[in-house]
Amino acid sequence: MNYRIDITYDGSHYNGWQRLGKSSGAITIQGTIEDALTEIFGREIQIHGSGRTDAGVHALGQVASFHAGFTEKSGNIEPEDIQHRLNALLPGDIRITGCAIAEDSFHARKSAVSKEYVYRLHTGERRVFNRKYTAWHKGRVDVGLMEKYSRKFIGTHDFRNFSSVKDADADTVRTIYSIEINASEDGYGGQDIEITYCGNGFLYNMVRILTGTLVEIGENNKKILENFDDKNGVNTAISGKMMPPEGLFLKKVSY
Amino acid sequence: MNYRIDITYDGSHYNGWQRLGKSSGAITIQGTIEDALTEIFGREIQIHGSGRTDAGVHALGQVASFHAGFTEKSGNIEPEDIQHRLNALLPGDIRITGCAIAEDSFHARKSAVSKEYVYRLHTGERRVFNRKYTAWHKGRVDVGLMEKYSRKFIGTHDFRNFSSVKDADADTVRTIYSIEINASEDGYGGQDIEITYCGNGFLYNMVRILTGTLVEIGENNKKILENFDDKNGVNTAISGKMMPPEGLFLKKVSY
Repeated sequence: MNYRIDITYDGSHYNGWQRLGKSSGAITIQGTIEDALTEIFGREIQIHGSGRTDAGVHALGQVASFHAGFTEKSGNIEPEDIQHRLNALLPGDIRITGCAIAEDSFHARKSAVSKEYVYRLHTGERRVFNRKYTAWHKGRVDVGLMEKYSRKFIGTHDFRNFSSVKDADADTVRTIYSIEINASEDGYGGQDIEITYCGNGFLYNMVRILTGTLVEIGENNKKILENFDDKNGVNTAISGKMMPPEGLFLKKVSY
Repeated sequence: MNYRIDITYDGSHYNGWQRLGKSSGAITIQGTIEDALTEIFGREIQIHGSGRTDAGVHALGQVASFHAGFTEKSGNIEPEDIQHRLNALLPGDIRITGCAIAEDSFHARKSAVSKEYVYRLHTGERRVFNRKYTAWHKGRVDVGLMEKYSRKFIGTHDFRNFSSVKDADADTVRTIYSIEINASEDGYGGQDIEITYCGNGFLYNMVRILTGTLVEIGENNKKILENFDDKNGVNTAISGKMMPPEGLFLKKVSY
């Protein structure tokens, strides 16, 4: 039987999504869920996430798939039972929001058609609360300028310069369908900014680097701005700094 | 010189406000701020908070006062400099939002005229985010019933039964000026509830026990409800359970 699970998690206390070797001592989201499934099914279960998230990155709608059959221990177990039993075993910062039987060909990563990420950012005075769910940037940024230049990223481009991909042979061409920026004043001279990216896929660290580039554009960094006016645009442009993980949320995976 | 500082903090990672002996190994808000002030003034400084908050309880507007004079190390230091230097030394979960020279007679606890606390509560499905800033209660509650009975607490009563005070000689009479309940649907069958208490002072654990009592009233707990109809009301009524610390915020102290 092939199952799909929908997951939301607070990544603050994890070494990211991907299971690492036991000797690493790292606690990961994937490893924590696999351990719970192994407990339920009485044999080792391996899950496939739609993609990896880094340490400190959160998910509102991560999706994973796994194959599992009935065992002597699990018996005939319904998807709702799996969800219920997983939530009873998992810590409070990981919740299974759905579990369903999927087509046999379904694979959470390979079947994904598009993904949505949100980056949350606050400018102005440092805040005491929600430090793990919003990134902080001291100076105000020009949101109009960010919106104007964000349009340059829309479409199909080679995003190598906007990623941490090291492999020279890797395919670094991706398509971004939309970038939406919502900003509001915080009432104390700062701004609350939410940037939502939708695309067919994102390279390693790409959303955090795109956001850092938009922030430097919002600071009117001439060096960054200039090279976008070149006819090659995004393909040869240089990026801004990478933003920290705590502002990033995997919002939705579409199939 | 007598100083007043205004403080906001995320209490999640602290053993409460009050400084404890070094041998306890406990990290407290008071101790952390005193250590920073000692660093600035070059001699030990003791601060007086408007009141203690327990481990895991937060503050939006805690107030503290302390006496300090110029020293060889500090020199002539302006209040804004103290605020700036404190914030540079303090961890990100404690922020000084104001520092001013106060009248010599000012004492953050003794001069306080009234205090405001907010308790934040969520009913329905457990949430992954903001677990440290909102308490969770599984079942829905009847907010209308809670509002109706909250009025019984208004005024001057002996709140001993609604506190953790053990000392038989302690004065447990307090005056509550207002209790305001704001509730909204979370869109998934649960409720977001905020209860704001304003009074001349609150006993040890009183806000958490009042909230637990209101929650059980909202569950239509007949045993709790009945004894409020007695003519002695609050003075002899029995309380509900104590709510956990993470939903509680010291909002404001008035002088």
